[in-house]
Amino acid sequence: MPIHFADRLAAAIDRKRTPAVVGIDPVVERLPESMRGRDPDPQAGAAAIEKFSAAVIERVAPLVPAVKINSGFFEVYHEHGVAAYYRLVALAHSCGLLVIGDVKRGDIGSTAALYARGHLTAAGDERRIPDAVTIGGYLGRSGVDEFVRAARISGRGVYVLVRPSDPTADVIHEFGESRRLYQHLAQLVSEWGDATELRGACGLSLVGAVVGPKDAAGTAALRAMMPHTPWLVPGYGAQGAAAAATRACFLPGGTGAVINASRSVIYAYEDPRHMVRGAAWEDCVVAACREFAAEAAALAGISGAG
Amino acid sequence: MPIHFADRLAAAIDRKRTPAVVGIDPVVERLPESMRGRDPDPQAGAAAIEKFSAAVIERVAPLVPAVKINSGFFEVYHEHGVAAYYRLVALAHSCGLLVIGDVKRGDIGSTAALYARGHLTAAGDERRIPDAVTIGGYLGRSGVDEFVRAARISGRGVYVLVRPSDPTADVIHEFGESRRLYQHLAQLVSEWGDATELRGACGLSLVGAVVGPKDAAGTAALRAMMPHTPWLVPGYGAQGAAAAATRACFLPGGTGAVINASRSVIYAYEDPRHMVRGAAWEDCVVAACREFAAEAAALAGISGAG
Repeated sequence: MPIHFADRLAAAIDRKRTPAVVGIDPVVERLPESMRGRDPDPQAGAAAIEKFSAAVIERVAPLVPAVKINSGFFEVYHEHGVAAYYRLVALAHSCGLLVIGDVKRGDIGSTAALYARGHLTAAGDERRIPDAVTIGGYLGRSGVDEFVRAARISGRGVYVLVRPSDPTADVIHEFGESRRLYQHLAQLVSEWGDATELRGACGLSLVGAVVGPKDAAGTAALRAMMPHTPWLVPGYGAQGAAAAATRACFLPGGTGAVINASRSVIYAYEDPRHMVRGAAWEDCVVAACREFAAEAAALAGISGAG
Repeated sequence: MPIHFADRLAAAIDRKRTPAVVGIDPVVERLPESMRGRDPDPQAGAAAIEKFSAAVIERVAPLVPAVKINSGFFEVYHEHGVAAYYRLVALAHSCGLLVIGDVKRGDIGSTAALYARGHLTAAGDERRIPDAVTIGGYLGRSGVDEFVRAARISGRGVYVLVRPSDPTADVIHEFGESRRLYQHLAQLVSEWGDATELRGACGLSLVGAVVGPKDAAGTAALRAMMPHTPWLVPGYGAQGAAAAATRACFLPGGTGAVINASRSVIYAYEDPRHMVRGAAWEDCVVAACREFAAEAAALAGISGAG
């Protein structure tokens, strides 16, 4: 039996002393000038974002437990981008990183079984398959079950979208009277992952949740509803009210959540704070990643980061 | 300015005298024995489902206005399957069909913009891009807007998931007290597509909805909430209560909806009713498609089908 996803992630967080995850969201227009391909030719575009992403992954690998690779940025280039996505998953694994495939797939049972096969258990080179993927639960239990089954047999995990951080999602997620849709989803996701056989030695389930920390009280209430659910937290904040909401994502002991930052790290060379004295773009990324890793560790209350 | 998606679809339905759409959901295990590849090798698997799908598309092209190609079945084979998906879109176009890419993508604004670019407006060979794609609206307005913008400039369309036909989706979609989530989504999708500049000469919007006809009264109520929204209808029924619910999907005059059938057509050779006297598998598919096209026309009240 492969080692449970939550246990592998906990061990990686422990090794790196931070729950920080770097998000790989590459667009040609924002690459360092030396790395821009001849977009919009799909092969050149895909090659450019792959080369950049590979350099970022290699540089951040010593500093964080995992990267999150966002499929949307690669699908722009059709099969060329998809091939790059899978090669980058393999590269990240060979650098000792865990990989979250941010694919946000979801469908009803029979089609979900195919998505789960492609994204979590496809035969062939194991290194090409992420350790977890993001999925939507909106099409119901049968679809989620297929992903959970695939994750269980392969020692992988899923993060179900529960509360987006984007304010334009409120029109959907604040829906409901005695209870909001995101609270309803949180309860379902907690139940879907609650069975003992879905939990690792660390106590956490392979069924996780994507939860944007919109406010401290609401986040704490969701956290209480999901005691065994690992969270993937986008849109984190390091200051003030945002920091309080992000702190509420963790379980006691600083476990139970990873925090993602994408553009603030991978495009750090656009930030005059990092881009000083003709620094190489890679060094700016490393500096921003170090800072992010330390911030995330502090929010989780993990000591010895850095 | 390209011709509006809803007008192109209406013209195709008028030409073929049926609102029937054949769904391309190929799995190696169910292919005619002569066509099975050496699965699970990804290249052989992708080649097998591509060859089968191409033969189905060529045979059904004279009989229906459009095909719906389900991305999940191709993503099993990673970049090899994705390349096959895009080649099949191009093939269907060259056979005179419209294509709905059943990709069910959805994300917040900035990532949705990338998905929209890849799936609706990618530069390069126009024939490789579907005429419409299915999307989820669950991550809010900003993501949907990106798809709508891409569809508008390219004469394409989107179908937003509103009411799944799968019963295990009820736990999500029957949520809500004075109003159910699917009714809330229906209202939003109707509003998102209501602007005059999003509507074609036929009056219908480029913002459509995926609506499973679960019951006649509920379907009629949704139809009344969405007078300008073209529907993509999965899980249709030709008899009894299911037929009444499917009839309720159409606007007066039999417009406003296309009906999808996948496995009952593409695997017709598994059905003893079609597989008689050593018929070729392709002929079974054609016979089942003819029957489906006539049934769908009858449900819509379109005369002269077949």
